Amino acid sequence: MQTHPFSIVLLGLLLSTPPRASQAPQVPAPTVLDALAKEALGNPRAHTLLTQLCSVAPKRLSGSKGAAAAVEWAQETMLAIGLKNVRKEPCMVPHWERGTVERLTLLNKEGEANTDLSVCALGGSPPTPPGGIEAVVLMVRSFDELTQLGEQARGQAIFFNRPMDPTLSDPFAAYSGAVDQRGGAGVAAFKAGARCAIVRSMTLAYDDNPHTGAMRYEKDACVPTVAISTFDANELEARLALNVSVHVKLELDCRWFADEPSFNVVGEIPGSELPKEIVLVGGHLDAWDLAQGAHDDGAGCVQALEVARLIKALKLQPRRTLRVVLWMNEENGGRGSAAYRDLHREELGLHVFALESDRGGFAPRGFESSSTGSSLDVLARIGEKLGAYGVGFVNHSAHVGADVGPLQALGVPCAGFVPDSARYFDVHHSALDTIASVHPRELELGALCMASMCLSVANLDKPLDRIPLPSGEKPKR
Amino acid sequence: MQTHPFSIVLLGLLLSTPPRASQAPQVPAPTVLDALAKEALGNPRAHTLLTQLCSVAPKRLSGSKGAAAAVEWAQETMLAIGLKNVRKEPCMVPHWERGTVERLTLLNKEGEANTDLSVCALGGSPPTPPGGIEAVVLMVRSFDELTQLGEQARGQAIFFNRPMDPTLSDPFAAYSGAVDQRGGAGVAAFKAGARCAIVRSMTLAYDDNPHTGAMRYEKDACVPTVAISTFDANELEARLALNVSVHVKLELDCRWFADEPSFNVVGEIPGSELPKEIVLVGGHLDAWDLAQGAHDDGAGCVQALEVARLIKALKLQPRRTLRVVLWMNEENGGRGSAAYRDLHREELGLHVFALESDRGGFAPRGFESSSTGSSLDVLARIGEKLGAYGVGFVNHSAHVGADVGPLQALGVPCAGFVPDSARYFDVHHSALDTIASVHPRELELGALCMASMCLSVANLDKPLDRIPLPSGEKPKR
Repeated sequence: MQTHPFSIVLLGLLLSTPPRASQAPQVPAPTVLDALAKEALGNPRAHTLLTQLCSVAPKRLSGSKGAAAAVEWAQETMLAIGLKNVRKEPCMVPHWERGTVERLTLLNKEGEANTDLSVCALGGSPPTPPGGIEAVVLMVRSFDELTQLGEQARGQAIFFNRPMDPTLSDPFAAYSGAVDQRGGAGVAAFKAGARCAIVRSMTLAYDDNPHTGAMRYEKDACVPTVAISTFDANELEARLALNVSVHVKLELDCRWFADEPSFNVVGEIPGSELPKEIVLVGGHLDAWDLAQGAHDDGAGCVQALEVARLIKALKLQPRRTLRVVLWMNEENGGRGSAAYRDLHREELGLHVFALESDRGGFAPRGFESSSTGSSLDVLARIGEKLGAYGVGFVNHSAHVGADVGPLQALGVPCAGFVPDSARYFDVHHSALDTIASVHPRELELGALCMASMCLSVANLDKPLDRIPLPSGEKPKR
Repeated sequence: MQTHPFSIVLLGLLLSTPPRASQAPQVPAPTVLDALAKEALGNPRAHTLLTQLCSVAPKRLSGSKGAAAAVEWAQETMLAIGLKNVRKEPCMVPHWERGTVERLTLLNKEGEANTDLSVCALGGSPPTPPGGIEAVVLMVRSFDELTQLGEQARGQAIFFNRPMDPTLSDPFAAYSGAVDQRGGAGVAAFKAGARCAIVRSMTLAYDDNPHTGAMRYEKDACVPTVAISTFDANELEARLALNVSVHVKLELDCRWFADEPSFNVVGEIPGSELPKEIVLVGGHLDAWDLAQGAHDDGAGCVQALEVARLIKALKLQPRRTLRVVLWMNEENGGRGSAAYRDLHREELGLHVFALESDRGGFAPRGFESSSTGSSLDVLARIGEKLGAYGVGFVNHSAHVGADVGPLQALGVPCAGFVPDSARYFDVHHSALDTIASVHPRELELGALCMASMCLSVANLDKPLDRIPLPSGEKPKR
């Protein structure tokens, strides 16, 4: 198109009830948001930080040397930004390694190797025995179908091939509707007497990239399990449709090691008036090992750091303490977020808000919050100011993020940043999740919206309502 | 991130006044939108069509063989989709060709060639004389600065280096704030007595790609003009900051030819009840010649075609006629849209709505409309149903698109589809505007939203209010 000046007007958010006067949001004055935006968009640093992280620790699955390097980088970066109380907080993490062999081969009638398929071990898979496993492929779409196979499944390779449903408007809903296969294939196939499992990759893309991710591991009770690219899943399905027996050979030398010591990394901008009250912002440092984890969740880490940097750059001091937390081990254990909860249990009542970014570094769409009622209204009013930067909603959701989950369960009002998700599962947990797939401006717009949200909540007169506890228990304050 | 089911709730749109009962929107019943979405997302065709267009007519500037091939492809595609009254409507178009030489060379002190910079001729530039032009570079940020140079400018190369402002929330506003340089550099430099002009590329990206686009051409009254990549613009600026004289040599063999006959391409789904009343949807077939014009505006063309295909696939017949119009010559003349207006002047009163897509094939954000008041409310209510697919606003704007502009000026209610714009100017008018930069799902989501908008308006009981004419003139109905 040509030169047609136009302006995006702030969109209105439907607020069912106006906020009570006592909870009127203390959003930054327009000049503060303007200043944040000017710094973020005129002097963006999130993508530069992400480039550093992806370079220093391109592979950083929990327990790896890369994860240790990421911890050191995070600590140094927090110090460079000028955060206070920078520290590493210990946690023990699981340690699984992919090894060097992951091969699924189609065998011809003579049992000779024919074609290698595009696969990767699922995270946590046991290895195959030396020499690999040979089996006949049986395709199922669900665990029920596996059960119906009965004795037929014994000794075979079970191929879980239910796709993510592309007709759902929300790719995360499509993911949720299919990912049970990734989590449960190994154990279910073991119970059925099968020798190995093959799971269709969790993606809406049709390409040659297998996507890894966590599977449930039970010692001596799950079989070696791989993800297969969607191209090869379709290819395999087409072969099976010919009603011929498809023989495969699987070789994996991935393995488990003893738990390793690791760390969450924490730093702060102390609050000016209520320094004991905490607004937390974070992402997770660990990432799957097929690429750089640039979107998942390097993006969330650098956005959390950039929130702090923007506030420092403007020489602002929020009323409450802003705490940046970069968690370890979100991907295959959640040990970091559990350790944070346990170490800080006594001060969780002073955590007034916890915001997580863990859905990729794409253009902002909105926020989800565990809050309801007038507290949700307060957040919605803050979000409304961010319409020009892409925020279109602040919705309630019962689950807003894995790493803030343990805090939410103990009453902390939590939120998750929601970027556009059309491209997310193309790269998620695959070799495509590299720095090249993250757009600098989209990433920075997210950091800007998160900064405004955190600063606004840190400056509220009255904190958000606590989240009701299922048990009725109240954490100490 | 891991497996956390969540759902995006439809966002509310702030409606200042509820629609009048008589104008209650006749949006498709939920089952119709659901069916459209199921077809669009389960059996998407927009990206396949775009791949065809980019393959059949990878370069299709007005007057070129590629443009003629695009016209034939469009006609065949409309017939294949099952449209009626498919035809080519003639228009004469300008014909400019880039030629084979476009070189800007830094010269060393001895006047020898040193470094070639990344440049491209602006569309419409005259060629240099044989042997090229040698001149000293003078940098300005505005036409005022050029005027202030006075006699100093005579015989020199004027370097217009005012960047798009990245701190503006809307990249289109940043574009509008800089693109005067591209349009006016050649004529202004001529008036100042300069020998050639160099314009910083219109993009927020820092890379090595020059971005072309239309410049104002006046015979014998403008100088040869090139766009320079932002990397090389910064490099040139840094050299000039050393206060040394920078000599360059410019060679261009682009040229103008006589106007050529060309066509808009038109096809229809006749309306069931009011076949003379028309809902128009379109994009422009021509594109700049550095790449495939995949976003600008192949995306808009295939989205308009996909709107019709989706409606046909569901065997729906709208009350009013849906007319797909693929305009020629948006980029450097607007002759196609003027010809459409002139040929259809007698039936413009029967054009109840015209929707244009010409801002790239990115994920949907909303719509802009020339309508106001209760008619804008009607459109907003339709948009509200599309929240799950990314539509967050239906805003009023005085200018919604170049190709619907001539219709809007004669009273037709018009709208422009607004996708996300963070990445648009990275590729716009450059060698990066290829099929690889268009995401299939993002493109299809736009087509889906456009289909729902067009179908809803085509089925309204009462048409939208006409746009008031500045002259008070009323087109015949």
